[in-house]
Amino acid sequence: MQSTTMSDQLTLEDLELGQVFRSQSYAIDAAQIKTFASQFDPQPFHLDEELAKKTFFGELVASGWHVAAITMRLLVASTPINGGLVGAGGDIRWLRPTRPGDTLQVETEIVEIKPSQSRTDRGTVTIRSTTRNQDGKSVLVMNSRLVVPTRSAV
Amino acid sequence: MQSTTMSDQLTLEDLELGQVFRSQSYAIDAAQIKTFASQFDPQPFHLDEELAKKTFFGELVASGWHVAAITMRLLVASTPINGGLVGAGGDIRWLRPTRPGDTLQVETEIVEIKPSQSRTDRGTVTIRSTTRNQDGKSVLVMNSRLVVPTRSAV
Repeated sequence: MQSTTMSDQLTLEDLELGQVFRSQSYAIDAAQIKTFASQFDPQPFHLDEELAKKTFFGELVASGWHVAAITMRLLVASTPINGGLVGAGGDIRWLRPTRPGDTLQVETEIVEIKPSQSRTDRGTVTIRSTTRNQDGKSVLVMNSRLVVPTRSAV
Repeated sequence: MQSTTMSDQLTLEDLELGQVFRSQSYAIDAAQIKTFASQFDPQPFHLDEELAKKTFFGELVASGWHVAAITMRLLVASTPINGGLVGAGGDIRWLRPTRPGDTLQVETEIVEIKPSQSRTDRGTVTIRSTTRNQDGKSVLVMNSRLVVPTRSAV
């Protein structure tokens, strides 16, 4: 595993299996949780501390989509792919709730590199991003397939 | 396939394979796209029409995470699972860009129902949600695993 903090923009040739990118951290509070939820995931356990007590979670927790969106924000700032992070899809698991006061950080590893068979200007790279809270516990793990340009394309 | 508009809250016993839920529609504009992006996905193709011209997309498009969040909002209002939509994970594919002026709608189908082996109070249900634009073209397909209570648990 190799850690990098380079700020230049990486092409397919610059990436290698096991390469790791670490993000800054992001603090989440109850107001942010409620604001996101009221727009995109208006369920009692994301909207109100009292209502949340009677639910599956038993307390106010962040929407999983809010945690995914924060993960993307941290990824954008920490994983400098040339042309930007262009995702085709992936899979996502939420392992435990994110609560008000948590601080999240993302570690991203290059897990697959596939040059295109038909095009010389791009390839597909699979990254695995793990979002952890301040206790080092994983809250989200996401594998994403990105379109990455080759050096000849930029 | 069966369509339902029932407003009561469904338990595991109420769900069947092939059952379909259709959402209301949701219009997205450039201001919403930029606001979401500046918070969670600050990349040129989500932030500014002019900057977007020089990118992979060639125009302003919504963050995939914004489209996923809108999908969740439409799901919450259209798929009345008892206790709420509690997701453990899933997979997601973005099939084409979502642009300012698009109107999105979600169709959700029950594709798997698994009563828990160890607990009588819940099961896992896999749903496939397809988000389409005003032309009927799919922009996002997502398979989600939900925790759903049995009737005995509510």
